[in-house]
Amino acid sequence: MARSATILIAAAVLLAGGPAAAAGQGPSRGPERPNVVLIVTDDVGYGDFGAYGATDIRTPHIDRLAKEGVRLTDFYAAPVCTPTRASLITGRYQQRVGLEEALASAGPRDRGLLPTGRSLPQLLKKNGYATGLIGKWHLGWKPEFAPNEHGFDYFFGFKSGAIDFYTHEAASGLDDLFENTTPVQVDGYMTDLITARAVRFIEQHAAEPFFVDVSYNAAHWPWQPPDRYVKARQVALQAPTDDPPPTRRDYAAMLERADAGIGEILRTLATLGLERNTLVVVTNDNGGEWLSRNTPLSNRKGTLWEGGVRVPAIFRWPGRLPAGRTSGQPGIFMDLTASILAATGTPVPPEARLEGINLLPILAGQAPPVERTFFWRTRTQKAVRRGDWKLLVEGNALFVFNLRADVGEHDDLARERVDLIRALRPLIASWEADVDAERKALAP
Amino acid sequence: MARSATILIAAAVLLAGGPAAAAGQGPSRGPERPNVVLIVTDDVGYGDFGAYGATDIRTPHIDRLAKEGVRLTDFYAAPVCTPTRASLITGRYQQRVGLEEALASAGPRDRGLLPTGRSLPQLLKKNGYATGLIGKWHLGWKPEFAPNEHGFDYFFGFKSGAIDFYTHEAASGLDDLFENTTPVQVDGYMTDLITARAVRFIEQHAAEPFFVDVSYNAAHWPWQPPDRYVKARQVALQAPTDDPPPTRRDYAAMLERADAGIGEILRTLATLGLERNTLVVVTNDNGGEWLSRNTPLSNRKGTLWEGGVRVPAIFRWPGRLPAGRTSGQPGIFMDLTASILAATGTPVPPEARLEGINLLPILAGQAPPVERTFFWRTRTQKAVRRGDWKLLVEGNALFVFNLRADVGEHDDLARERVDLIRALRPLIASWEADVDAERKALAP
Repeated sequence: MARSATILIAAAVLLAGGPAAAAGQGPSRGPERPNVVLIVTDDVGYGDFGAYGATDIRTPHIDRLAKEGVRLTDFYAAPVCTPTRASLITGRYQQRVGLEEALASAGPRDRGLLPTGRSLPQLLKKNGYATGLIGKWHLGWKPEFAPNEHGFDYFFGFKSGAIDFYTHEAASGLDDLFENTTPVQVDGYMTDLITARAVRFIEQHAAEPFFVDVSYNAAHWPWQPPDRYVKARQVALQAPTDDPPPTRRDYAAMLERADAGIGEILRTLATLGLERNTLVVVTNDNGGEWLSRNTPLSNRKGTLWEGGVRVPAIFRWPGRLPAGRTSGQPGIFMDLTASILAATGTPVPPEARLEGINLLPILAGQAPPVERTFFWRTRTQKAVRRGDWKLLVEGNALFVFNLRADVGEHDDLARERVDLIRALRPLIASWEADVDAERKALAP
Repeated sequence: MARSATILIAAAVLLAGGPAAAAGQGPSRGPERPNVVLIVTDDVGYGDFGAYGATDIRTPHIDRLAKEGVRLTDFYAAPVCTPTRASLITGRYQQRVGLEEALASAGPRDRGLLPTGRSLPQLLKKNGYATGLIGKWHLGWKPEFAPNEHGFDYFFGFKSGAIDFYTHEAASGLDDLFENTTPVQVDGYMTDLITARAVRFIEQHAAEPFFVDVSYNAAHWPWQPPDRYVKARQVALQAPTDDPPPTRRDYAAMLERADAGIGEILRTLATLGLERNTLVVVTNDNGGEWLSRNTPLSNRKGTLWEGGVRVPAIFRWPGRLPAGRTSGQPGIFMDLTASILAATGTPVPPEARLEGINLLPILAGQAPPVERTFFWRTRTQKAVRRGDWKLLVEGNALFVFNLRADVGEHDDLARERVDLIRALRPLIASWEADVDAERKALAP
């Protein structure tokens, strides 16, 4: 813990000229106030980007980012999307705000993420950044939970977990497309709309520091390929038993369209001369669904096996991060929060109590890798990863895996490594007690 | 189905001289009225017998049975013990009698398996067999559920899922040892008591056809090795976090003691000249627990991954079955019911509606292998295996595995084999409707 904190401070000094320098400089533009383009795809498998071994999906623009930046092998999300997004916005475990599961369209709509004034976009906004969320929110439907309340100057997108890519209807049957707080109707394939609005946002804010969270719903169901309208049979959930079933080709086409959109965003940055002054991150919100390729991981979205939580993550920042490097440094979504705040020299009030770390000095090779401890919880499973070791608890069953040697989680070492079970299980219990106490304080 | 029925009838004719011959012969002794010794271990891993690849556990007597008989690679149980045992006694899916989960010591004790007059031991008894259950029952505590009510002439053992191997107390804290319907107190390590009573039963019934179900609790928790009293900290459940934790060596010693007991039983058969006239089956009731070695299977007891349901099974019947052969014929516990009834020439009333098949002609090489379809269900998972294909349903997630090519279930083929999902998922639904209707008719 002490070590991580030291590195975080060191990183802030190293990469952003230090909090003092940033504070002294005010909102004016300079290389120490880089832009951040965070691109988050949806339900994509760990092995579905070319840079991560995809064989039947072409993602040349994402692959180019990997060639020009650092590719993380051990980056994590939550097993479903709402929790991942909550941890990004708050910089803390999503359990603390009671958002452990995906908000269901059919469920009570009075739940969501309440603004605190210290969420990621809010802090960036306070630091003079133009802030935009383009795409999926999924952190609450009611106006008080809306992106603009959290510090996003601009929001274009939808609030559900999934919408029809063509009609923009949610599973509720209601239209779900907003420009800021206003419901809007816009013709177009959702991926293309997101790309176009992201490009426009970048163009409009090229002269000032900006943060844009480009939150593609590709390649989440309904699996509707671009340029060919297919009625979404089930926006809430799509299954292989649909008639006809969606295909891997549909999924691939959707993901390739998002990659094409990323290409447009990258071209925009280049055209505007913003490439070197912009940190671009591409990642995904949870494990892949059934049309995905999670290879070499086991299991999928919704579970705490690696296939449920490990996601691709690529960081590109020319001149600041090396090109074409792969890093085994374990990271997690709330590290993005800490990393972005550090990279942008954004003051972080102590009460924000960030739980992630700034990964950038490590990815830059300016700081040594650090051992990390991550926790996950669903209704049926609990897990902790510390260093290379993972303890997975499923009912009465305990599994121990060495993720460095066995990323596919095929060789359970529970028998041999009782010492690890005894060391790690109490950590889960402590973590649960901690996050649950905070959640109960929030909504007793 | 028609094919299986034909084979079943053919087998009865082939191996038992036909129902007519058996009926004509009455209860007198002859080679067509073989004895059956069914040995069931508890919570042993698929890879924990030497014949199944164990490297650190010595099971010479079980291995000898494999050398002298047929070893099945694809034999199945339910994921926990009560359902497996219910399917053996009834010869039908345990869901039909509402015993889908392990009866909990702490749960309502008014549940159990009601006698029907056509259970496996009852039919054997009617056919002139001496019938004995030595060891674990776990199909109900109340007198009306007791083994003797089901046609076991003799019962020595316990009714809980687990007892202290030394004190014979159940998790309830109550003594749990019976001789027939009488609570008894007997000094001794449970495995040895089971062996001794099994040997005595065989000796006492050497002159008449007998069926003995030797139901060892080894190597179920509490993990108390033989010859060294260790207080069972938790009879209900034992965990790696116990202080000190049980070890793989404890588990191995327990299993090796059961193997030694099997050796005594085999010696008794040989001494009495019963070897050639006795079908011996050794199997296990569900997947291994955390001290087990389930290699090459994934996951463990309680789940519907192969590590939860696939179990070792060895059939020895000198002169009737080949020696040293391995069979990939898929089988399931209720096949034991059909096989034992067929081998013993026991008339089966139509209302018994056996769901298993007689495996013996297939294992003997006298009938071709048959394609099978098996179903499983727990609170969180459903699964079907048809031929080499398995569909596993876990929440929204569907997995497809080719078990012949990928016994470890590492390569999910859900994307590629939508045709199989579409074919197999309705089978699960039909099966569920069928078994649930029968269960509801039983206890609406």
